Amino acid sequence: MNLKVVLKVLGTVLFWESVLMVPSLIISIIENSYDRNAFIVSIVLLGFIGLMLKNIKVNLNIRKREAYASVALSWLMMSLFGALPYYISGAAPNYIDALFETASGFTTTGATIFANVETLPRSILFWRSFTLWIGGMGVLVFTLALAPSLGARSIFLMKAEFSGASSGKLVPKLSETAKLLYIIYGVMTGVTVILFLIGGMPLFDAVIHAFGTAGTGGFSVKAGGLGHYGSSFIEWITVFLMFLFGINFSLYYAALKGNWKSFLKNEELRFYFIFVIFAILLIFFNILPVYNFSLSDSIRNSAFHVTSIITTTGFATTDINMWPLLSKIVLFILMVTGACSGSTTGGLKLIRVMILFKSVIREVNHAIHPSSVSKIKIGGKSIDDEIVDNTLIFFFAYIFILFVSIVILSLDNFDFMTTFSAALASISNIGSGFEQIGPLGNFSQFSSLSKVTMALCMIIGRLEVLPVIALVSPSMWHKQ
Amino acid sequence: MNLKVVLKVLGTVLFWESVLMVPSLIISIIENSYDRNAFIVSIVLLGFIGLMLKNIKVNLNIRKREAYASVALSWLMMSLFGALPYYISGAAPNYIDALFETASGFTTTGATIFANVETLPRSILFWRSFTLWIGGMGVLVFTLALAPSLGARSIFLMKAEFSGASSGKLVPKLSETAKLLYIIYGVMTGVTVILFLIGGMPLFDAVIHAFGTAGTGGFSVKAGGLGHYGSSFIEWITVFLMFLFGINFSLYYAALKGNWKSFLKNEELRFYFIFVIFAILLIFFNILPVYNFSLSDSIRNSAFHVTSIITTTGFATTDINMWPLLSKIVLFILMVTGACSGSTTGGLKLIRVMILFKSVIREVNHAIHPSSVSKIKIGGKSIDDEIVDNTLIFFFAYIFILFVSIVILSLDNFDFMTTFSAALASISNIGSGFEQIGPLGNFSQFSSLSKVTMALCMIIGRLEVLPVIALVSPSMWHKQ
Repeated sequence: MNLKVVLKVLGTVLFWESVLMVPSLIISIIENSYDRNAFIVSIVLLGFIGLMLKNIKVNLNIRKREAYASVALSWLMMSLFGALPYYISGAAPNYIDALFETASGFTTTGATIFANVETLPRSILFWRSFTLWIGGMGVLVFTLALAPSLGARSIFLMKAEFSGASSGKLVPKLSETAKLLYIIYGVMTGVTVILFLIGGMPLFDAVIHAFGTAGTGGFSVKAGGLGHYGSSFIEWITVFLMFLFGINFSLYYAALKGNWKSFLKNEELRFYFIFVIFAILLIFFNILPVYNFSLSDSIRNSAFHVTSIITTTGFATTDINMWPLLSKIVLFILMVTGACSGSTTGGLKLIRVMILFKSVIREVNHAIHPSSVSKIKIGGKSIDDEIVDNTLIFFFAYIFILFVSIVILSLDNFDFMTTFSAALASISNIGSGFEQIGPLGNFSQFSSLSKVTMALCMIIGRLEVLPVIALVSPSMWHKQ
Repeated sequence: MNLKVVLKVLGTVLFWESVLMVPSLIISIIENSYDRNAFIVSIVLLGFIGLMLKNIKVNLNIRKREAYASVALSWLMMSLFGALPYYISGAAPNYIDALFETASGFTTTGATIFANVETLPRSILFWRSFTLWIGGMGVLVFTLALAPSLGARSIFLMKAEFSGASSGKLVPKLSETAKLLYIIYGVMTGVTVILFLIGGMPLFDAVIHAFGTAGTGGFSVKAGGLGHYGSSFIEWITVFLMFLFGINFSLYYAALKGNWKSFLKNEELRFYFIFVIFAILLIFFNILPVYNFSLSDSIRNSAFHVTSIITTTGFATTDINMWPLLSKIVLFILMVTGACSGSTTGGLKLIRVMILFKSVIREVNHAIHPSSVSKIKIGGKSIDDEIVDNTLIFFFAYIFILFVSIVILSLDNFDFMTTFSAALASISNIGSGFEQIGPLGNFSQFSSLSKVTMALCMIIGRLEVLPVIALVSPSMWHKQ
């Protein structure tokens, strides 16, 4: 691997990270809050390191190895350095907590170590939610522009619109796709802000919650989350928005290029819609007794938490710890599946779930009729067997990493549900779970080892597992 | 599918089941216990139905479809009819409970609905443990003789010793292999009885616990399980025996044919050994405080429960609910993996775990060096890509069925750990789990729906998933 190339890329990333801290600095100056100097120090330090690395003289010949390493190390470095404002200002009690919060942001997880967010200065709150939003943008560019351009043997290869770039013209093709994605993401976030304002939220809260919705991360500025505003309108509009941010952005991209029909033809989207409706109804009937058979409370809370969990946002309006076990198990399953590929959501992604199911059906048919040979189809198009294999391997790797992190987290000796859901909430980038990390809880009580493990899981889950495993593979590093 | 062929096979199976009830009848006559008539009625009924079906006039041309259907329906029918003695005698409170207990036996699961086994007549206890032992024998014949002869695209294809039979000479080849397997299994069970007698167990108890050990099922006749005898010798010898019954029987088979070296060359066996030692040490250190830092108690209890769970036996000597979460999670993982392929143990089987790991490593190498093409190797031999695919699909199907059963079990609204471990204990054929179904608990408190679900899961797990899914596949039934 050519380390110089990777360092040069990282330099660019860190330089931009320092620029992205400027809005928070401005807020801290306006509000004259205690974290002003923390932002100044962080910006100067990051800008300096970034510029130094950025100016390394090397031919920018990015092969797959360098690209994978750059992506994995970018998320890692952005988290390590993005933690500085929390740490220097003393907002977070120690560096590990600061790191956890930042990794949680950039991976659009939304898990928090802050027990009382309402006492934090606005500049810190802004930085926290801004990392979410930036992370979401990064994810879209990574999955919809970068990964297909690299010819990665991944699920995203199917999006014909985004693939096919030869390595020679990687950068121009990337920039063009990325620019359109930025515009879509930005406009949708803007609309979200406006809708929250209409719902009666103050401007600052509206912006913060729009970041949380768009990045499907779910950081809030209120201890009671979105339930704080006691507005059914806000809650229902959030359900709708979360659902929209769970859709594959390549469909919005196609629509922007005039191809509206792609929405109707998309099999993953249909599955997403049916799956969400089914889960909402199941939980609705199951939680009726909890809400004294109030139809409106039951359906609203069910719809809210189903969309919040499947899109891996993690917003909350009620304490789901009170729900019966069936509802919790349904939410657990949504935590694993996630929503559509090519969105800012985490988890497996529904298209993978569909491929997994179809591969079982094909296997059974093959066992009964050994002569039958058939391709798996999604939306009428054949899926390459390489992608099916990749999906099956991805599933195992995902479950394996989940269990390894459960083992490490279990050293803290919390109850099974807290431990299990904390690991799952990390690798699936959800940010909240059950019992102690339920809607009213937070992650502060875990040990440092557990926090570092969860932060790593967030990055592993966010980058679709393989790039991070590749980073620790010996064959990544040997030779030039 | 040719239904007549399947019915004829089922007839033979049911006829033999009635014969297998005779020893229990003899015991009930000797002991003059209340269940004597129940055995008489069951034997006559089963014998009659069996003989009728057995005499159906049809050319025994067994294709893959008929073979799969016969195997899946055999386990189902044996469970449905084997439940009669419990039900007619009134030993089980209702038919569903009787069915649960019988399915648990024939699948070598060992989960029980009896809260107080010590009050049951010996004839019922014998029938209960005999189903375990017979089930174990059936599993060996199915996985080591039948499945490879069918050319099933499965893990067992690798055992060159057992494959290669053309469909024409299926039956003679099968009988020869099966006979040798019966001998090995019988002799090892006999040795187990003798060792338990040396350990000071009464003859009846020694036979029952030998059935439980050989079938890796774990039904006991004492409420306190093997801990009842308070003998370190018995506990350590059981550890050793359970470990031996977790080894691939094709190695014993090869040894019997003079090829002792196959033990040393077997990569799965090496992995099994190292994995068990590692798990024992991890739990040993973790549970030291629970046993007041008694080294001997900690190591014995750790070794006992690690081998008991990884071999999916389910014997117990202590209440593992008192253990710290880390130890429980380690046991959870052993519940998923199981021990070696070609044994009576359940779960995924270690060879599948090895293939899953190696496929992730191959995928990462492929991502970094796209031109690299390599085969996965186990024990120096290349594994066919079809088998790798089958393993990956098996893993998903396994986890999927696990989650479906968790959803159904969660309707009973027990705690998460009870629900999760009950489903896992069923599909992995272990028969005990945590909290309410821990070593001191039983399955009686579950609803009928849950019991039927778990009984089905036991059969699905036992038959390595695909034959049972095939049974409900439309393509299995259309045409002749």
